[in-house]
Amino acid sequence: MDTPIVILNYKTYLESSGNNALNLARDLESASEESGIMMVACPQAGDIYRVCESTSLPVYAQHIDAVSPGSHTGANLIQTLIEAGASGSLINHSEKRMELADIDEVVQLCSQFKIKSCVCTNNLATSQAAAQLNPDAVAFEPPELIGTGIPVSQTQPEVVADTVESVKAINKNIKVLCGAGITDGDDMKAAIELGADGVLLASGIIKAESPKDALLDLVSKI
Amino acid sequence: MDTPIVILNYKTYLESSGNNALNLARDLESASEESGIMMVACPQAGDIYRVCESTSLPVYAQHIDAVSPGSHTGANLIQTLIEAGASGSLINHSEKRMELADIDEVVQLCSQFKIKSCVCTNNLATSQAAAQLNPDAVAFEPPELIGTGIPVSQTQPEVVADTVESVKAINKNIKVLCGAGITDGDDMKAAIELGADGVLLASGIIKAESPKDALLDLVSKI
Amino acid sequence: MDTPIVILNYKTYLESSGNNALNLARDLESASEESGIMMVACPQAGDIYRVCESTSLPVYAQHIDAVSPGSHTGANLIQTLIEAGASGSLINHSEKRMELADIDEVVQLCSQFKIKSCVCTNNLATSQAAAQLNPDAVAFEPPELIGTGIPVSQTQPEVVADTVESVKAINKNIKVLCGAGITDGDDMKAAIELGADGVLLASGIIKAESPKDALLDLVSKI
Amino acid sequence: MDTPIVILNYKTYLESSGNNALNLARDLESASEESGIMMVACPQAGDIYRVCESTSLPVYAQHIDAVSPGSHTGANLIQTLIEAGASGSLINHSEKRMELADIDEVVQLCSQFKIKSCVCTNNLATSQAAAQLNPDAVAFEPPELIGTGIPVSQTQPEVVADTVESVKAINKNIKVLCGAGITDGDDMKAAIELGADGVLLASGIIKAESPKDALLDLVSKI
Repeated sequence: MDTPIVILNYKTYLESSGNNALNLARDLESASEESGIMMVACPQAGDIYRVCESTSLPVYAQHIDAVSPGSHTGANLIQTLIEAGASGSLINHSEKRMELADIDEVVQLCSQFKIKSCVCTNNLATSQAAAQLNPDAVAFEPPELIGTGIPVSQTQPEVVADTVESVKAINKNIKVLCGAGITDGDDMKAAIELGADGVLLASGIIKAESPKDALLDLVSKI
Repeated sequence: MDTPIVILNYKTYLESSGNNALNLARDLESASEESGIMMVACPQAGDIYRVCESTSLPVYAQHIDAVSPGSHTGANLIQTLIEAGASGSLINHSEKRMELADIDEVVQLCSQFKIKSCVCTNNLATSQAAAQLNPDAVAFEPPELIGTGIPVSQTQPEVVADTVESVKAINKNIKVLCGAGITDGDDMKAAIELGADGVLLASGIIKAESPKDALLDLVSKI
Repeated sequence: MDTPIVILNYKTYLESSGNNALNLARDLESASEESGIMMVACPQAGDIYRVCESTSLPVYAQHIDAVSPGSHTGANLIQTLIEAGASGSLINHSEKRMELADIDEVVQLCSQFKIKSCVCTNNLATSQAAAQLNPDAVAFEPPELIGTGIPVSQTQPEVVADTVESVKAINKNIKVLCGAGITDGDDMKAAIELGADGVLLASGIIKAESPKDALLDLVSKI
Repeated sequence: MDTPIVILNYKTYLESSGNNALNLARDLESASEESGIMMVACPQAGDIYRVCESTSLPVYAQHIDAVSPGSHTGANLIQTLIEAGASGSLINHSEKRMELADIDEVVQLCSQFKIKSCVCTNNLATSQAAAQLNPDAVAFEPPELIGTGIPVSQTQPEVVADTVESVKAINKNIKVLCGAGITDGDDMKAAIELGADGVLLASGIIKAESPKDALLDLVSKI
């Protein structure tokens, strides 16, 4: 995982679904090329193939189910997502929380299939717990700030710094991202200065008048 | 929904994932053309776009989440699945059971977006309950027979007949499918003779040496 | 189930937990005796035994799990709740929604063990669906009004009347309760006049300065 | 938590429900008195009050929901379970798995209310993750051995030893229990010799002809 990294969670907004998912991927791609900063798109499962076809961005799934091939109607099988083009996945996002044993299983599946795993967490203790599972990254997002535009990196700097330090004390190879309320260049600069390896964002970019300009602004101060 | 209808639930078998999903769709397509019987593919969300690109079959999702556009990381939004090409969905499959209020919401979403809804049920009472929600179809599958090769249409004929009658007494426009253990021409013939409008199947076809031959055999006696 | 009936869902308020659950049961008991109206307490599982010991009220569970005796750590087994004194249960409350097949299973368990089943629903269609499962009662509660004090019986009278009529058209022996926002005598009077057999309530009574007075007011106009 | 400790998960067996829960508690109590080994009963929520009334054993809940007082119909509120007599709880049992954030929340609630928290885990990595949440105990149970009578302490000794060492390296105050297949004195002796502070058991004792004799045998070799 090259860092600093910007991961854009598409969620299920209309602005980031279907054809809009492709447009957004192109914005990410040109912002990434212009800035030289690694950017990743996380579209819905139904859009992964199309997004991968139309860009050279790394594309992560929003969720992988803790299942092996078999009778699991409605599940997202890791093999299918990889064949569609995914090279990583968010795991345990606060809107798709998972049982501890399942988080562990999906992190192991990602490692076995050599794709990136990014476990989302809600506080210091769960970030340390997630780190014990050896994912590629931990993305710390206080749920109460998600979608608010109140940047965790500026309002809870000590928690971000503690999380970075604690996760890296467990395994220094784990990247630490921070999310929730991150919108502009100052927010991202603050995150990086606190030791974070990148940011996880969503509505602040997706709902921006020009997502590409918002992305360029985001990385303008690092 | 043209009937008799054969719906093939791809589940998450490797034999029906990724490129194999496309091959299977071609088998379905040629079996449908040769027999004149309507056949539907239900691939995983990550494969819907590719399957729709490569065939002219109707394609249903295996599951739709009861959400509207917004912050629902990891969910399958109906708009996205439709844009990928889905023209219907299984709902409440026994491997992806849903809360009653969510079944109702997804049936309503399908109706609003003019795609087909097929609610899976496990017995007579839940089939009648599902019928009250006015889906396009109810697919009755006793869970204890799923994946066994023991055909419900031949071992529980009275239950199939009762279910057909009861559902149509509530709303005669609802199609009734039967599933679980359906594999060959005799099983499907028995289902149709009991009043069913079609069948829902999975492993019996997907794991067959030649899925196309198995499909042609399936519809050979009706 | 004697009607008109008042069912008080204790939820997990401190005002209705532990010793407070006993006090509230005594309030219900004396309000029931003074008014002659059947009242039922629904405390948490951990309080059922104590409430049953200290009053002669009918006591319902808030939830029963769809399990048989065996390895189900953390579940509420129907046999245990009955031995603690429960003579009925809420099923599928909007704060504890259940899968359709599980609602059916618990309704059947209640019938088999001869205790009362009251399935909660959120609209007309799910009320009709629930009625197909043959519970003793259906309690219709629009989720958007729960806890608001905006009485469904006065703001959505036509929906209440339609629900009563539709459920009884399916099975005239099913009692229809209405809930959400019901607080005072006018609300209950409106419900009964619309054909409801009773009401399901919670915070309006539990958080009242004098729950007993609030209960007496509730039934004062019928 | 005094050690060595024997925690008996009552699950939802008829042999450990209602009046049988009381009988079993008396067996535990006398086995504990005769052997001088700390024993804990984990009955269903509906039986906690009665078990606490009839013995002086420590009693743990099987599960606590991650909720605060309020509108949570059907949930087990920690305050209610404590008022019923619980002095601890199992958390995240393999039959009642919880989301990571909820495990963390319930461990914190237990700490805040000064009752014991015992987080169940399924392998080494999830045991280390659980240890990061600072519970009083971690109980390691490989799911594939639960209920089999194949004792983890004798068939996977290296995994038990690794788990003990790893958890205590994170926080030496955390007790490590081992479970799954533990039935007799040799199984418990093996567990203790591998560094475990106690055992978590269920069917091996509950289904024994004489639970008291089985308990005395269990602790006979330590």
